[in-house]
Amino acid sequence: MIHHTQATRPTEDDLIARWFAPIAGPGGLGLRDDAALLSPPAGHELVITVDGLVAGVHFFADDPPASIAMKALGVNLSDLAAKGAFPLGFVLTLALPRDWTADWVEAFAGGLGDMALRCACPLLGGDTVKTTGPLTLSITALGAVPEGRMVKRFTALPGDVVFVSGSIGDSALGLQLRLQPDAHWVKAFAPEHSAFFADRYLHPQPRLSLRAALLAHASAAMDVSDGLIGDLSKMMRASGTGAEVDLDAVPLSPATRAAIMAEPTVSEVAWTGGDDYEVLCAVPAAAAQAFRAEALKAGVAVTEIGHVMAAKHGVRFMRDGAEQTFSRGSYSHF
Amino acid sequence: MIHHTQATRPTEDDLIARWFAPIAGPGGLGLRDDAALLSPPAGHELVITVDGLVAGVHFFADDPPASIAMKALGVNLSDLAAKGAFPLGFVLTLALPRDWTADWVEAFAGGLGDMALRCACPLLGGDTVKTTGPLTLSITALGAVPEGRMVKRFTALPGDVVFVSGSIGDSALGLQLRLQPDAHWVKAFAPEHSAFFADRYLHPQPRLSLRAALLAHASAAMDVSDGLIGDLSKMMRASGTGAEVDLDAVPLSPATRAAIMAEPTVSEVAWTGGDDYEVLCAVPAAAAQAFRAEALKAGVAVTEIGHVMAAKHGVRFMRDGAEQTFSRGSYSHF
Repeated sequence: MIHHTQATRPTEDDLIARWFAPIAGPGGLGLRDDAALLSPPAGHELVITVDGLVAGVHFFADDPPASIAMKALGVNLSDLAAKGAFPLGFVLTLALPRDWTADWVEAFAGGLGDMALRCACPLLGGDTVKTTGPLTLSITALGAVPEGRMVKRFTALPGDVVFVSGSIGDSALGLQLRLQPDAHWVKAFAPEHSAFFADRYLHPQPRLSLRAALLAHASAAMDVSDGLIGDLSKMMRASGTGAEVDLDAVPLSPATRAAIMAEPTVSEVAWTGGDDYEVLCAVPAAAAQAFRAEALKAGVAVTEIGHVMAAKHGVRFMRDGAEQTFSRGSYSHF
Repeated sequence: MIHHTQATRPTEDDLIARWFAPIAGPGGLGLRDDAALLSPPAGHELVITVDGLVAGVHFFADDPPASIAMKALGVNLSDLAAKGAFPLGFVLTLALPRDWTADWVEAFAGGLGDMALRCACPLLGGDTVKTTGPLTLSITALGAVPEGRMVKRFTALPGDVVFVSGSIGDSALGLQLRLQPDAHWVKAFAPEHSAFFADRYLHPQPRLSLRAALLAHASAAMDVSDGLIGDLSKMMRASGTGAEVDLDAVPLSPATRAAIMAEPTVSEVAWTGGDDYEVLCAVPAAAAQAFRAEALKAGVAVTEIGHVMAAKHGVRFMRDGAEQTFSRGSYSHF
């Protein structure tokens, strides 16, 4: 990789014209204006979500730039997916640290463009600034839902079945692989499992294909970003409900199961670790079977992990019939 | 001011519930969800603009927190104003440095709420994160224009009259007051002028009331954020046109005129300095009088400073009939 010196670095206008304008959608007006244009399709309303990511807090400064871009867009699209929305586009604020290079920006824009294309979510605009601190990103993603149909976080009802998509904990183990590679239980990971965990941490896959099933059946949903235990508790608190969750039912990948076999306490890392970007939702019992079938047809496995209950029951996590408590309910990026 | 210690600092959820939820609009769903909802009014499309601001780059870390908030929202609203859009709402990413205090956040949210209320642009959502670097903000503002009517930057036509709103340079002098208070020409400012410059730098006033006049008459517009000379050149380049500008016609406040009287080279600071947040626009000659009258009726003075010409003429800045060139055309925050 050739590092350009300060003197030959492109200007902000160069950056935009060379690397960002080519990945802009029509509403971005070729990034020639200070603003972008967008219309939600007829009968739809706009869903807006925003996430900030800071190097050293939400990702590692030396992560591949394409991966940083894909994660930044991915975590926003994960929010849209959980709301039953399809993406329309996004805007980006990119605060570049002092040691930025043209190569870094080129690779970053490449990853961003790939992800934008794959998820049909074009770049609409942005702002590039300098910072004396770490690389910082903010993405605002815009999506659409049929009017009045956004799946909210705070509308779960007692009796609903609680589902979660995919598998939980892989990404948290991928993070531990980075943070404490020499821990005995981390060193015990099989090489192919390590690669899987690392990929799950770096490249969240927004569950956009769950959209129709969520819109049709879910009474409430959110994406799991700060750990299943904490996010589920948050959804129940917001809904004014309790829940009973069967921890043994939480879906785990074969890799995470192997890690837990080797070191049983890893299960807590899986349940409370963050960065899953799976969808957690509540579905009326009568619709549970239809929801599961529709999700599977869309290529996403969903697993029943418990039930919503009245608030007075509290949120209870059960294992072998006994309630479990957690010293650290969730991972907060804050 | 009482500084809370780390131990008693509120959590992210506390911050949101205590200070941000009260200033959220209905589309923000009480900030109880991961996403916000918005519908542009019938017959309108959405205009989206985003600006990032970093302490030490775009503002001073020790500026009053309410002023930082007002500026962050103001610069975004200035973009909407220049596009002929009215505001619908905004989302915020707030990256707090290690030494943040609850008092700071309270004052920041207070200023943000005041500005949001004054400009009818409610908070819709946000993300609060920690950074090891300086305080960093990103605001995405959403507005609406009648379909197909957004006033673009790149559509000026030869023959158009070039107008600018308000007065130019006050804010750049406010910045110099902070950067080099001991310079002889800065020390020569009258105290009441210093206070005016400082206020213009800290508190940009988005020209939202120009909206109807711009929609009715302007063929192109942008806000002046990086200096009049540079931004005008940028608008002409984007439009594929040239221009001839009469520098003596550039509107100056009495305070800036006094500063130039004392030190003539200050005029270059005024013309090229940034942070004006005035509207620069091109208006067909036949509509110039109507535009000026409508702007005045809306309470905004607009001043004719030149004409758009064919590209081959280049962009020429004239003074006493002689062309002036500038060593530094614009202030780049990048």
